[in-house]
Amino acid sequence: MEVMRAANERAAAGGDVLHLEIGQPGTPAPRGVIAAAHAALDADRIAYTEAFGIPSLREAIARWYRDRHGVSVGPERIAVTTGSSAGFLLGFLAAFEPGDRVALAAPGYPAYRNILRALDLVPVEIPTGPETRFQPTPALLAALDRPVKGLIVASPSNPAGTMLSPDALRDLARWCEENGVRLISDEIYHGIEFTGLRAQTALAFSDRALVINSFSKYFSMTGWRLGWMVVPPELVRAAECLAQNLFISAPTLSQRAAVAAFDCVEEADGHVARYRRSRELLLNELPRAGFDDLAPADGAFYVYADVSRLTDDSEAFCKRILAETGVAITPGLDFDTARGHRFLRISFAAAEAEVAEAARRLVAWSGRR
Amino acid sequence: MEVMRAANERAAAGGDVLHLEIGQPGTPAPRGVIAAAHAALDADRIAYTEAFGIPSLREAIARWYRDRHGVSVGPERIAVTTGSSAGFLLGFLAAFEPGDRVALAAPGYPAYRNILRALDLVPVEIPTGPETRFQPTPALLAALDRPVKGLIVASPSNPAGTMLSPDALRDLARWCEENGVRLISDEIYHGIEFTGLRAQTALAFSDRALVINSFSKYFSMTGWRLGWMVVPPELVRAAECLAQNLFISAPTLSQRAAVAAFDCVEEADGHVARYRRSRELLLNELPRAGFDDLAPADGAFYVYADVSRLTDDSEAFCKRILAETGVAITPGLDFDTARGHRFLRISFAAAEAEVAEAARRLVAWSGRR
Repeated sequence: MEVMRAANERAAAGGDVLHLEIGQPGTPAPRGVIAAAHAALDADRIAYTEAFGIPSLREAIARWYRDRHGVSVGPERIAVTTGSSAGFLLGFLAAFEPGDRVALAAPGYPAYRNILRALDLVPVEIPTGPETRFQPTPALLAALDRPVKGLIVASPSNPAGTMLSPDALRDLARWCEENGVRLISDEIYHGIEFTGLRAQTALAFSDRALVINSFSKYFSMTGWRLGWMVVPPELVRAAECLAQNLFISAPTLSQRAAVAAFDCVEEADGHVARYRRSRELLLNELPRAGFDDLAPADGAFYVYADVSRLTDDSEAFCKRILAETGVAITPGLDFDTARGHRFLRISFAAAEAEVAEAARRLVAWSGRR
Repeated sequence: MEVMRAANERAAAGGDVLHLEIGQPGTPAPRGVIAAAHAALDADRIAYTEAFGIPSLREAIARWYRDRHGVSVGPERIAVTTGSSAGFLLGFLAAFEPGDRVALAAPGYPAYRNILRALDLVPVEIPTGPETRFQPTPALLAALDRPVKGLIVASPSNPAGTMLSPDALRDLARWCEENGVRLISDEIYHGIEFTGLRAQTALAFSDRALVINSFSKYFSMTGWRLGWMVVPPELVRAAECLAQNLFISAPTLSQRAAVAAFDCVEEADGHVARYRRSRELLLNELPRAGFDDLAPADGAFYVYADVSRLTDDSEAFCKRILAETGVAITPGLDFDTARGHRFLRISFAAAEAEVAEAARRLVAWSGRR
């Protein structure tokens, strides 16, 4: 956040900023979604919906699992949520009791920790590194000194960009079922994958997993605040009652428009093709800039770089990069309070030309520093 | 909820239902809001916004307080939220610690209790009746056997439809300040007032009050999921950090469109004029149907009726009314678990002709029963 503030101040002062710190697509929603929103604005009253969302959207999401993942899940288990944010709130409240301990990888999305703490739950961070693709494993979980009630996994991961193989995800799901641990699978970067491996949903391995997803990333719809959760059958009733009380319903216009998203896969895949080109460029150029210890960028739009050879203060380092090159990069501290001082997250969600120019400046800067 | 389900089943089976159970306007957003949404869809990327919302909307809300209430509040204290629902979540988390006791009137909006409980807070219900306009008073608060950390007030109230006079609200605000109790003022029915008395905001009496409002009711924008909170200065930083983590931001399209709402007061007041006519009709006709013990319907769009002369089981009574007349009414049990078995909430948010036909049927039914 400090670096974002510095980047905003620099931009406000008329300086140029190349945004490799951002966590969202630079593109609008697919054209079909925008057209559907226009149509709904004219035809629909935009009233509250059912707590779990409009039936047509819940059915479209269920079809998506069948067609894309070969997984059968009934629409009665789909809860449409106000972004994945509301999915986490709802899922944590439905699955856990105050004081429960919930394991998650460090580095990881900081809101996991902060939402858990806000709800009086206890995040238990598992330090992970390149040896496990920055992902938890059954062995790491078994080595915890006290048992946990939940496990959050994210594949592809933010900030690491790494993925769990289907076998690794299956092993984690199995370990959770055997140990009475509720698996929360954050699948919001699904669809943004680069290695030929399609991210598998935890639903393929466990009916007890809570699966969180979103229209924000693959479908490029961040500001629409729309996501979904697949709820284990035994939690459906509790989650629906909670959703009614906590949120009433997700934004109606976003719901009506999002039904069209699943017909816009070509446009979404076009964005992924662009991310792929930017990723290739960064993986080639960043080592020339001295960033040569990179996590495998399997998916999402992030390269996580170990920069311990260059600095032991990633925040100061990012501020210096910003000041000297205009390139905004996120220090790892935001994702890993213990070890993030030697990591950076470099995003390639921005436009291709912006990523390319940033890489050029970083390489030039490395010659000067 | 039982009666809503029965009403939906009746409608699905081809039966007619007159909706006097609903808690939302039957009208769409103002025309200017819809036009602004079309324009934003074409011009804007619909990305995440600042956690507390876009500056132009926060400034418009601050102007609204100045122009309508003569109250000065800086835009830096305005948090745009995903409906009042997110306002309550955010407000409760910012103001209270797990285990804190929070007082509120019974009858009251059931989500207050349920959100408090979900967040491990303790709702302390204060039974209220016509002698205090179904509102809490300093005397009732002082008589609690154990101290509370917070007080929720709603004026106009759901379900009672009653208002606190400015003096009564001032006295409550003062009592809260003197007793270290955080006042949460739910002002979402502001603007829908019938007695010539304009609802006053708690901001006029206390800088420590948390004020929750919404575009849902007066501006007829329920499905847009947009509201706001006015945050006490000392809680701004904590609330902003929580909002960023819990919600990221409120729906962007709704935010852009809602800026136009404040120029649509004429259309909104047209709805209020319609509610006023329906209210008059109900206050005249309901006594002829045997509902003669009515709370003063000062504002909102509800008449709360004491029907203890007719039944001691309001839920069964509502089901019978639905079955025998097609009129859907909400039993008081939803709002007051202890005494709601002898109350009903009758909404006049529906179209005028629907309310009139419902009244006609209720009068006719009273002759038959």
